Amino acid sequence: MDADDLEGPESQALDLAALEREARGRLDPAVYDYVAGGAGAELTLADNLAAWARLRLRPRVLRDVRQVDTATTLLGTPLPNPILVAPTGYHGLVHPEGEAATAAGAAAAGSLMVVSTQANRSVEEVAAAAPGAPRWFQVYVHTDHEFTEELAGRAAAAGYTALVLTADLPVLGNRLRDTLQFPPGMVLGNAVRRHGSSGVDIPAHVSRFDAGLTPATIAWLRRSGLPVLVKGVLRGDDAEAFVAAGAAGIVVSNHGGRQLDGALAAADALPEVVAAVGGRVPVLVDGGVRWGTDVVKALSLGAGRVLVGRPVVWGLASGGAEGVRRVLLGFQQELARAMALCGATSLADLTPDLIARK
Amino acid sequence: MDADDLEGPESQALDLAALEREARGRLDPAVYDYVAGGAGAELTLADNLAAWARLRLRPRVLRDVRQVDTATTLLGTPLPNPILVAPTGYHGLVHPEGEAATAAGAAAAGSLMVVSTQANRSVEEVAAAAPGAPRWFQVYVHTDHEFTEELAGRAAAAGYTALVLTADLPVLGNRLRDTLQFPPGMVLGNAVRRHGSSGVDIPAHVSRFDAGLTPATIAWLRRSGLPVLVKGVLRGDDAEAFVAAGAAGIVVSNHGGRQLDGALAAADALPEVVAAVGGRVPVLVDGGVRWGTDVVKALSLGAGRVLVGRPVVWGLASGGAEGVRRVLLGFQQELARAMALCGATSLADLTPDLIARK
Amino acid sequence: MDADDLEGPESQALDLAALEREARGRLDPAVYDYVAGGAGAELTLADNLAAWARLRLRPRVLRDVRQVDTATTLLGTPLPNPILVAPTGYHGLVHPEGEAATAAGAAAAGSLMVVSTQANRSVEEVAAAAPGAPRWFQVYVHTDHEFTEELAGRAAAAGYTALVLTADLPVLGNRLRDTLQFPPGMVLGNAVRRHGSSGVDIPAHVSRFDAGLTPATIAWLRRSGLPVLVKGVLRGDDAEAFVAAGAAGIVVSNHGGRQLDGALAAADALPEVVAAVGGRVPVLVDGGVRWGTDVVKALSLGAGRVLVGRPVVWGLASGGAEGVRRVLLGFQQELARAMALCGATSLADLTPDLIARK
Amino acid sequence: MDADDLEGPESQALDLAALEREARGRLDPAVYDYVAGGAGAELTLADNLAAWARLRLRPRVLRDVRQVDTATTLLGTPLPNPILVAPTGYHGLVHPEGEAATAAGAAAAGSLMVVSTQANRSVEEVAAAAPGAPRWFQVYVHTDHEFTEELAGRAAAAGYTALVLTADLPVLGNRLRDTLQFPPGMVLGNAVRRHGSSGVDIPAHVSRFDAGLTPATIAWLRRSGLPVLVKGVLRGDDAEAFVAAGAAGIVVSNHGGRQLDGALAAADALPEVVAAVGGRVPVLVDGGVRWGTDVVKALSLGAGRVLVGRPVVWGLASGGAEGVRRVLLGFQQELARAMALCGATSLADLTPDLIARK
Repeated sequence: MDADDLEGPESQALDLAALEREARGRLDPAVYDYVAGGAGAELTLADNLAAWARLRLRPRVLRDVRQVDTATTLLGTPLPNPILVAPTGYHGLVHPEGEAATAAGAAAAGSLMVVSTQANRSVEEVAAAAPGAPRWFQVYVHTDHEFTEELAGRAAAAGYTALVLTADLPVLGNRLRDTLQFPPGMVLGNAVRRHGSSGVDIPAHVSRFDAGLTPATIAWLRRSGLPVLVKGVLRGDDAEAFVAAGAAGIVVSNHGGRQLDGALAAADALPEVVAAVGGRVPVLVDGGVRWGTDVVKALSLGAGRVLVGRPVVWGLASGGAEGVRRVLLGFQQELARAMALCGATSLADLTPDLIARK
Repeated sequence: MDADDLEGPESQALDLAALEREARGRLDPAVYDYVAGGAGAELTLADNLAAWARLRLRPRVLRDVRQVDTATTLLGTPLPNPILVAPTGYHGLVHPEGEAATAAGAAAAGSLMVVSTQANRSVEEVAAAAPGAPRWFQVYVHTDHEFTEELAGRAAAAGYTALVLTADLPVLGNRLRDTLQFPPGMVLGNAVRRHGSSGVDIPAHVSRFDAGLTPATIAWLRRSGLPVLVKGVLRGDDAEAFVAAGAAGIVVSNHGGRQLDGALAAADALPEVVAAVGGRVPVLVDGGVRWGTDVVKALSLGAGRVLVGRPVVWGLASGGAEGVRRVLLGFQQELARAMALCGATSLADLTPDLIARK
Repeated sequence: MDADDLEGPESQALDLAALEREARGRLDPAVYDYVAGGAGAELTLADNLAAWARLRLRPRVLRDVRQVDTATTLLGTPLPNPILVAPTGYHGLVHPEGEAATAAGAAAAGSLMVVSTQANRSVEEVAAAAPGAPRWFQVYVHTDHEFTEELAGRAAAAGYTALVLTADLPVLGNRLRDTLQFPPGMVLGNAVRRHGSSGVDIPAHVSRFDAGLTPATIAWLRRSGLPVLVKGVLRGDDAEAFVAAGAAGIVVSNHGGRQLDGALAAADALPEVVAAVGGRVPVLVDGGVRWGTDVVKALSLGAGRVLVGRPVVWGLASGGAEGVRRVLLGFQQELARAMALCGATSLADLTPDLIARK
Repeated sequence: MDADDLEGPESQALDLAALEREARGRLDPAVYDYVAGGAGAELTLADNLAAWARLRLRPRVLRDVRQVDTATTLLGTPLPNPILVAPTGYHGLVHPEGEAATAAGAAAAGSLMVVSTQANRSVEEVAAAAPGAPRWFQVYVHTDHEFTEELAGRAAAAGYTALVLTADLPVLGNRLRDTLQFPPGMVLGNAVRRHGSSGVDIPAHVSRFDAGLTPATIAWLRRSGLPVLVKGVLRGDDAEAFVAAGAAGIVVSNHGGRQLDGALAAADALPEVVAAVGGRVPVLVDGGVRWGTDVVKALSLGAGRVLVGRPVVWGLASGGAEGVRRVLLGFQQELARAMALCGATSLADLTPDLIARK
């Protein structure tokens, strides 16, 4: 990216607070609260944001930053930047085209989308909405293991190139703000083929997620032929164990503050996990990433990539596929700007010395 | 408890803030302030809650948590979970059935209730309200020592299995929010037999608590035949001395922020006391426990059990015995949920590494 | 003091916030702001209170505290408690009897009053208002050294037993909230004899304070025959130098946040000064002391005595001499209560282990 | 400065919050936001102020401070005090006389003004507005290097005695509050001669700043014959490299929080830079300096001089040249007051022991 691009016609700075206000105005309050809310006292929800904000940068100046390159490669897939679409469920709640629009927007931005098991559109529909775009599939393991095996196989067949196993939802968090009733007739796309009906009872379906996962689940999922990343890791010893069990990557995450309230903020857990993994597999992080400077901080602390969830949903709610595209390109632009202001021309320049010690 | 139970018909997440609002709406403001208030600037009242909130958890994931067992045994009594009813006085202020309703609700939840000396119902009445339920008796030592001896004997005879000696009220705290006038005719149940009247002057009675207690008081109370726990301990050296003097347990507590304002928050005092006691007797803690995750934090720091006070009173005010039951079962449910989300299947899995170092 | 006294007829807990509100309602806003305000951004004004509030106590329990003795002796003067009246100026602004009422109230409480150079009543008038009461005189050194020498001599003759040299006002602080115009005809009592008129121009008088003081000023003032304490010390090296120069005591103070904004809070400066003085002379402290627990904290950190300023002024504004007496007895009562709740029966029991380390 | 001057007719304490309110009332909201705003979430904007406020002073007392001397010499120029006018752009937005008024006000106060490349008046016009006053020129390097070379030469010819190379604006920060449209016909004074028109498109001009600067840029600018300071440095290693490359001074700055949001506060970055420079060249600092005590803190941490930006703009907006003069003399007065209250009579007395360790 040219430094000049920051001044060009599409260069308006990303303002996610304004975008969230706009989305909120368009959504049913219960849907807004479902997306925005967290578990318990929302300590972790708030701390996810605060932890990035607490970190201070030590920018380098008088560097030639006329060309800033945000490109990277992830598990063999070249990407224009290290910002992925985090898996979030039920995009049909905020836009009639649901995940099809999200996928189209992500593809237009060149971003890798992690599609949720709980999508309203099936893995095949999402793939068809943006053929050839990079795409992973997020897995909730169902107590009906055959359903999950079949779904993983369908994802592989549809061109998804990795599975992201969610590890932090053996049971649902106590989301006090969540009073959402799913609209009658809402389709859980991936369940239709097996259950023969679009009207599957979503809460009942969720309550049948398997609470008995172990590191062996990783190997079981790898039988799909796809690499498996583990998402929801906040400890070094866990990360170590999952790498040993065959994980192709670790996603530091507390599920956006929606599961265990009081869990470490993602930014605070990241260094320990990075140290434990020791570069053997990629470490990604999500939770509270809202600014280009947050991406710089995450990468400087050793996360190879970040995922953004709620901002993409606000983009989808406000502008469909085009809204998603704008959010993702906005993030890329803000990352490039922050890199330039830190004197960094490539992701390799984002090193720990950019973060001030307390 | 099955993980599935968190999704069942009684599984609505415990929302104590909403419950307190409901109770407040039902109560005379002076009664609300009496229950809710603390001493002085209410620094300790606020810090009790803040100290739990400051702690961050390091959950373990990919554990098989299909079965989560919250059961424990305390001084020989098997209990479904480690959450006890803290002693609080004058339940007749918030519900006409007073401690009889509390006892019935606690029994329905299987919880051990610590009944206060300052109950409106006598030890015998409370026992009769829920025969066979586990129950301890909290002791304020009166300057009329015979009264206290007699009362301890009555408690033993009525099936209470331990005494909890309150150590932190030699004089009353400066509770500036407390403007409560006791209703005329309010009965101090335990004083009726000795004083021959239900109309005992409560403030005068309180002013005759004995300010001259020492560790020797523990041995004196043990003459009742019951084990004696000491409540209101915030220092390791004190705990050590009381164990040496025969205490059967230590309750880390600052009296819910109602006595010495500026005293250490319960969560902050806990580790020192746990270290000093070294496992010789159970360590319990109360003060600011409002979430299942607080219970997890307390147990991870080494407290064997927790007591909850004000939430039980709000449950009583809102729904009588059934309200108490709901609060206690809600706590058990939230403890089980938090354990599952931490990868813990029994209380033994709640170890110090679950707490992040700062 | 008997523990019982905390429950007696005069035992209503001291509520200084309510008292300040009452005083504020009675005073001209400019007078209120003059008394309440501080310098600059009022960082130090706020931090004086916050620093005491940040400290946490580790109370001892199961101690026999039936008798709590707050008595002490200071430079040979026996006192019922370690709480002195800090020097503050212009009491005539808040009560028609000015310092005469303050002196009478302090005497009724048995407290030592430090009378300000800037009193509206002369040293002789204040002494006459409460004959035989313990009393010190606070000295601002005037550029007219003879005036100051004469005034020190008058104080000695009138029975004042020590001088308190204010060291932190070489120039006035930038008190942005202070818009006070002194009422026409307001008398600066101590200036009348020399200047032959009650209508001395107060701002002009203040502007002639001597900005050239040095440690040698201590010896010069001792020529009055009185011991000299230095007030306004926040550093150990300064305290050391002043003791070496003959100071009979050190008052840790930042002038109630009215002089150098950003100066260390009194509570935060205290330990260093205590360590430097090493017990050779008494160390006193003022600034933000509002609760009995603050007095316990100050003494536990090694301050032998505390001074309270604004609370006495609010008492004076609200109730004249009787208001002053109530504030001072209220402080004594709250000190006794806090000591009892800390398991302390004498001031000697207030040791550093009562303060939690961070 | 005499201590007496703090009580004289012009001695009203500087109240910048009031001044900003007054300026805000006079300005178009978009202009106010342009000046007041920062980048991103304005973390660094806020932290610049908070970081000075967090520092606590350890004043020395009983020093003879009848004469306080704030004078200093900077790169050979004698100055009455160490407070410079920071470079800020477009003074014509807030006052019709623009930088001509600023220069006149600064000259009246004896202060050194750093004039911005982005001034509405040309270097010659500003020089003519206050002949003989000390003045430096701030340089944004244009991609049209000849333009910058020519401009540096013009500054040298017009009597500017140093260049200040801005290093932290390779691209513009994401200033979300900035919605300013430059008024039609606004003149970018320094561009007129080259571009032959007063109506140069300002945003387009800014977008052509050179993002390819390196330490070699310092030597290139020195070909103007003027010493070159580097502004926008927050790291010791950067400062070391720029001194090695010939910088005549280092300005610790984060561009007033307008460039990289999350960058270290100026006060927090200062000690590392001071240590790295080791006294070889002057270290200056700007960012959040609002009080005389902030200047004392900066100098005690080793900054030789400070620059103030927004306060000068508020003075200009409120009162033109006279408003600027009042702000600068007010700062000098408050510095002198703070020095007196710290027991310092010259800038050499402002040593690190005045700052409390945390």
